[in-house]
Amino acid sequence: MNGAESLVKSLIASGVDTCFTNPGTSEMHFVAALDHVPGMRSVLALFEGVATGAADGYWRMAGKPACTLLHLGPGLANGIANLHNAKKAHSGVVNIVGEHAETHRKLDAPLMSDIEGLARPVSHWVHSSLTAADVGADGARAVAAAQEAPGRIATLILPSDTAWTEGASVHTAPAPAARPAVDPAMLNRAAEALHGSETLLLLGGAALTAENLEKAGRIAAKTGCSLLSEWSNARLDRGAGRVIVNRVPYPIDMALQALRSFKQVVLLGARAPIGFFAYPGKPAVLTREDAEIIELAGAGDDLSGALDGLVAALDAGDASPKGMADRKLVPPPTGKTDANTIAQALAATIPANAIVVDESITTGRAFFPATAGAEPHTWLNNCGGSIGYGLPLAIGCAVACPDRKVLALVGDGSAMYTIQSLWTMARENLDITILILANQTYQILRGELTNVGVQNPGPRAIDMLSLDRPALDFVAMARGMGVPAVRVDEAGALTQAIEDALAAGGTNLIEVVV
Amino acid sequence: MNGAESLVKSLIASGVDTCFTNPGTSEMHFVAALDHVPGMRSVLALFEGVATGAADGYWRMAGKPACTLLHLGPGLANGIANLHNAKKAHSGVVNIVGEHAETHRKLDAPLMSDIEGLARPVSHWVHSSLTAADVGADGARAVAAAQEAPGRIATLILPSDTAWTEGASVHTAPAPAARPAVDPAMLNRAAEALHGSETLLLLGGAALTAENLEKAGRIAAKTGCSLLSEWSNARLDRGAGRVIVNRVPYPIDMALQALRSFKQVVLLGARAPIGFFAYPGKPAVLTREDAEIIELAGAGDDLSGALDGLVAALDAGDASPKGMADRKLVPPPTGKTDANTIAQALAATIPANAIVVDESITTGRAFFPATAGAEPHTWLNNCGGSIGYGLPLAIGCAVACPDRKVLALVGDGSAMYTIQSLWTMARENLDITILILANQTYQILRGELTNVGVQNPGPRAIDMLSLDRPALDFVAMARGMGVPAVRVDEAGALTQAIEDALAAGGTNLIEVVV
Repeated sequence: MNGAESLVKSLIASGVDTCFTNPGTSEMHFVAALDHVPGMRSVLALFEGVATGAADGYWRMAGKPACTLLHLGPGLANGIANLHNAKKAHSGVVNIVGEHAETHRKLDAPLMSDIEGLARPVSHWVHSSLTAADVGADGARAVAAAQEAPGRIATLILPSDTAWTEGASVHTAPAPAARPAVDPAMLNRAAEALHGSETLLLLGGAALTAENLEKAGRIAAKTGCSLLSEWSNARLDRGAGRVIVNRVPYPIDMALQALRSFKQVVLLGARAPIGFFAYPGKPAVLTREDAEIIELAGAGDDLSGALDGLVAALDAGDASPKGMADRKLVPPPTGKTDANTIAQALAATIPANAIVVDESITTGRAFFPATAGAEPHTWLNNCGGSIGYGLPLAIGCAVACPDRKVLALVGDGSAMYTIQSLWTMARENLDITILILANQTYQILRGELTNVGVQNPGPRAIDMLSLDRPALDFVAMARGMGVPAVRVDEAGALTQAIEDALAAGGTNLIEVVV
Repeated sequence: MNGAESLVKSLIASGVDTCFTNPGTSEMHFVAALDHVPGMRSVLALFEGVATGAADGYWRMAGKPACTLLHLGPGLANGIANLHNAKKAHSGVVNIVGEHAETHRKLDAPLMSDIEGLARPVSHWVHSSLTAADVGADGARAVAAAQEAPGRIATLILPSDTAWTEGASVHTAPAPAARPAVDPAMLNRAAEALHGSETLLLLGGAALTAENLEKAGRIAAKTGCSLLSEWSNARLDRGAGRVIVNRVPYPIDMALQALRSFKQVVLLGARAPIGFFAYPGKPAVLTREDAEIIELAGAGDDLSGALDGLVAALDAGDASPKGMADRKLVPPPTGKTDANTIAQALAATIPANAIVVDESITTGRAFFPATAGAEPHTWLNNCGGSIGYGLPLAIGCAVACPDRKVLALVGDGSAMYTIQSLWTMARENLDITILILANQTYQILRGELTNVGVQNPGPRAIDMLSLDRPALDFVAMARGMGVPAVRVDEAGALTQAIEDALAAGGTNLIEVVV
């Protein structure tokens, strides 16, 4: 068995059965191994950022890593932005990056680059295989590293000679270790702190499953504390029958306002709130200066156990969860498509058990509150702030959950970073309904220009944030990549278009004029 | 004056007047400065790889650096693949990368990353400004670093507080130093070696201007030596009236064949030939084992002076250049569009003084020999091997040379990595005629699969290299980004379509069925 074969078999033996790839010459033996070793689904992307974003979405919904297969340093580089997002979302990913054979590296060939150097800023674990005999064990170690709670980025660099040389063997990653339990003393301290509306239980990560939110709802009912989540959540269950947890707002002034009443903040899988960016003359830490921050549990800890512990300590087991959302039937909206009518259309159409990938940026700020009473669904945010994550993420979600409908809500500017995603969606016939929110501008930057203190921006600055010259026609682009598409500018038509797309199944794109 | 303003003014004072950008919040003060400081042309890209590839093309044709403006680590990361190509092409580029304010970095905000770590593998010079007062001088130093011969990548990281704080000043980069002259003893040794057809003068970099090629042609006429260039050239003048210099072939067996007769190889701005990739059982060094390699001059040396010195030492000043191409009138081709008929169509239509950006990969191997007798033009290759360089490069060439026609020859697989380029072309109304060579496969990898020893690839391997499910419709995609487009599958229609596009001016795309 050669190294490439041992790697594919070791990945499969370790539970990794999905590969998002854009391969090149140095990865040809891995491609050949994928061909004759059964058990690995290979999903081709036309750009590496699609592959890495898909692996992020796959982890979030499958709860286990996919692998990516990337071509040398530049292939990895094209995937870095979405690996950054995956890292910040605590997603586990196994990157396999081809490298020149050892004899070739010293010659400084055109495609030679410092792959380890490129990998390190976005990886928790980086390793280059030295010989074919090592590859299987290295692959198993990469899977183990990716599965370390809460989820990590592991990058295995595979020189082509280690892939084609014989003498390799298959290894299996051990099962992930149990998440560490929280410290009982800290649990008691948190339980004592949680009393009244001036205390906040700030939730993140695995605390945001429907089951865990119900526990949080009981704690809120019993103690009167407030519940919030971070602005960006890797995965949040919500909708009818789930406890409503709002997010700390993104706009700095709104965030300061939302947090200023809290004297105690208990962190459960969340980090202490800070601004997304620094703004001149505004604080970076969003909680009040005298707030007591109690770090009950980090993202990798046993958050479910911590909530059980809090419920027990507070004797909240019989409390009726506070803030449980009722199913709210929304009349289909009419009128021009704007932030509010689009939000209503979503509230009316999000199907039960849907996965909503949210990269709706400015237009989408109205979507979240309006959809609290929609059918139960799972909402995914961008945790790393690098735009172009939405379409790739939707691919990974749909591959991980073929029985669930995926809705991708993506701003026009964001969509253009990784627009090649559409082709992979069509190729794999993934059940994804895409709303492109076309306001023809980097609208968020218009606001940020003011936020950083630039008053009265001139025509050249405005022009650098405008996408309307020429207008982007997403219907044409989608059709060019095999995805049926329509454009709507009226809310009733939007509602109908979403329903039609969901009923048709497969990938469909709706360009929504904003 | 704040730091951002001082940077824009220092760049302009140092001769940098073109900025390819995709900005974000942390770059808003720079955007504001671009607005009210006259003299910098700002070209917006929808993806950072477009901006960095454009900067590469700009340097190649303008001979001076452009700057890029990129948003934090992920924005830089999206530009790395084309910075890799630029670095390998010896292009000078000044990257300005926004960073969080110093107070914000320690908080590990969502967009926080190791920007210096990401920059280093693709940069010769990396620096983070510490205070607003430093920014102007840092900008001037970055320009000086980028202009160091033969051209270097300089990355300046600009924390947002250094951009918005007052107290900055304007600095100017010194003029680039003269390129070092070659060692006279080495010149004599090379002159002595160059005799007869078993000696090769291998040319690269600045040796490939029309003027320098004429000198090389005189040397070949006088000595009987052979002339070749590297496989990938940043810029090569050719066509009628220029000395024909063929490239060392890409396919390994053809390259070995082309080089095996040479007992002496004189390197003039070129590196000793090696394989693009390692292949099992095949040599990495392409020259024969007993070949004497004479490193006359590196890419950063005075290549023009070295050629003058050789001409003088060999008394070749009066020799008539060997291998001067005649204008060869090609009858317009007919029949299906394939590698040969497309090559004929190009030979018939390349306009005088055109810039040809070549990312035609497998289909294009016939183009180069067939166009040796076309109207005089300049031919640009990908020097780093990371695909997705062609469309961005064409932008930079067209911005640098508004009076020259640009032809971009791009494979369908390659085009999809940076397809967003089309929008910037349309927005800037750049005079670019694009041929998309649509063979609906990563054809080069089909061959490489065999080259690395994989016989009889199975259906899953073939499928991972196929782009025909669904078919990519470049006409629709181009129209979606504001670029007029047609599809042709017949050589006469192709010739007409190229002529129409050139006559119409502006950006036009032709999808060529292969």
